[in-house]
Amino acid sequence: MNEVMSLLKNHRSIRKYSDRPVGREQVEEIVAAAQMASSSSNVQAYSVIAVTEQAGKDKLAELCGNQGYISECPVFLVWCADLSRLKAAAERHLPAGAETYESSVENFIVATVDAALAAQNGAVAAESMGLGIVYIGGIRNRSQEVAELLSLPQLVYPVFGMCVGYPDQEPGLRPRLPLEAVLHWEGYDAERSESGVKAYDETMVKYLRERTGGMKDTPWSVLMAEKLAQPARLHMREFLQRRGFGLK
Amino acid sequence: MNEVMSLLKNHRSIRKYSDRPVGREQVEEIVAAAQMASSSSNVQAYSVIAVTEQAGKDKLAELCGNQGYISECPVFLVWCADLSRLKAAAERHLPAGAETYESSVENFIVATVDAALAAQNGAVAAESMGLGIVYIGGIRNRSQEVAELLSLPQLVYPVFGMCVGYPDQEPGLRPRLPLEAVLHWEGYDAERSESGVKAYDETMVKYLRERTGGMKDTPWSVLMAEKLAQPARLHMREFLQRRGFGLK
Repeated sequence: MNEVMSLLKNHRSIRKYSDRPVGREQVEEIVAAAQMASSSSNVQAYSVIAVTEQAGKDKLAELCGNQGYISECPVFLVWCADLSRLKAAAERHLPAGAETYESSVENFIVATVDAALAAQNGAVAAESMGLGIVYIGGIRNRSQEVAELLSLPQLVYPVFGMCVGYPDQEPGLRPRLPLEAVLHWEGYDAERSESGVKAYDETMVKYLRERTGGMKDTPWSVLMAEKLAQPARLHMREFLQRRGFGLK
Repeated sequence: MNEVMSLLKNHRSIRKYSDRPVGREQVEEIVAAAQMASSSSNVQAYSVIAVTEQAGKDKLAELCGNQGYISECPVFLVWCADLSRLKAAAERHLPAGAETYESSVENFIVATVDAALAAQNGAVAAESMGLGIVYIGGIRNRSQEVAELLSLPQLVYPVFGMCVGYPDQEPGLRPRLPLEAVLHWEGYDAERSESGVKAYDETMVKYLRERTGGMKDTPWSVLMAEKLAQPARLHMREFLQRRGFGLK
């Protein structure tokens, strides 16, 4: 296995960091690597806010559902989908009457995907430097307050956060769905996927039992059923529309 | 620079492939590496369809706007956001009366981001094996026909395609926006971003002139203005809703 594959295959989310600082140049390196990810028609429709000041991290930790590791990590990155640069360009070059479609679902997908591709490159870059990361979906818990705290303009929304720091823990690898559940050949095979889920339920029961000394053993598909039944972040649609993403 | 960074920094989209075949095991390796990307609460809400048969690739090339390299690449991967596994789990474990929220914008974001993070890991894995890739947003041109061709169930939608093959070209690196345009410290700085765009316009004019022998020299922000003014894929909202993504 080459070095890159072995790095990818060893990913673990890191939620506890040593005191070792992360320099500004390291953040710049991470984002420069992120920028080399593919981007839809070169629109580069994303921005990253690096938060390093304690007050900002503390406030974000609170807004993300009191996740202490956001306060504790040396650098917290907020990855945003960003159509504001494109809108500004449109206003400069095609003013008078030029209809813009910044509010379509399509452009929302473009910007969200651009942010995610860049972020994952950034995650891999960080790990190659010996750093650990964890994605923070909780950045969408109180989106409006996050947008205000970070002075985000219209047409910019925080997709997820990412804690970055030198690891002070070594969690085990978490098993993934068996390949057959996610990889299909020539066309989608729902039965294959379902039998993969059954096998995974057993894997995860065993994994959880071992990891928690028998305290937890809920099968994955039960956890997923509970998750789906639990309404989460139902403010997102209204929030996005207020930010200029019409989702039309 | 470590080996991983140097790989990330050397990414170019590859649209021309040698005859060298790509084996099934290689595809499995790529997807296994993709699976190790982070996933929101471990939902793993994505699936990949590998298309290797000529007829399927030819049809997809047509549906993606007649992009010949989809026919020519040995393997075409269709990365899908997939909430169908979660829905199935919900129906198995929390039937009678359990409300499900599969149709929220939030869950649409979760699945789309999960697919993108996995795909970018897959792209990096492929490149580490000496393969080249190009993302194909054109998979959203005629989404409904793609969904039918690949027998996608409800709550699965193709986010993007990806051609994979051994490169038979060596394109130059395409310059990205200057770091200052995408990386902000502590809060969003629109002025900094704007001055970055101005610098990038000059960079890209020079780059295009050199690359096309003076045939093209439109500044980036003008291209972006034109792009935004051009309505693209306005069927997406209705298509997604028909697939079960209510975007509520």
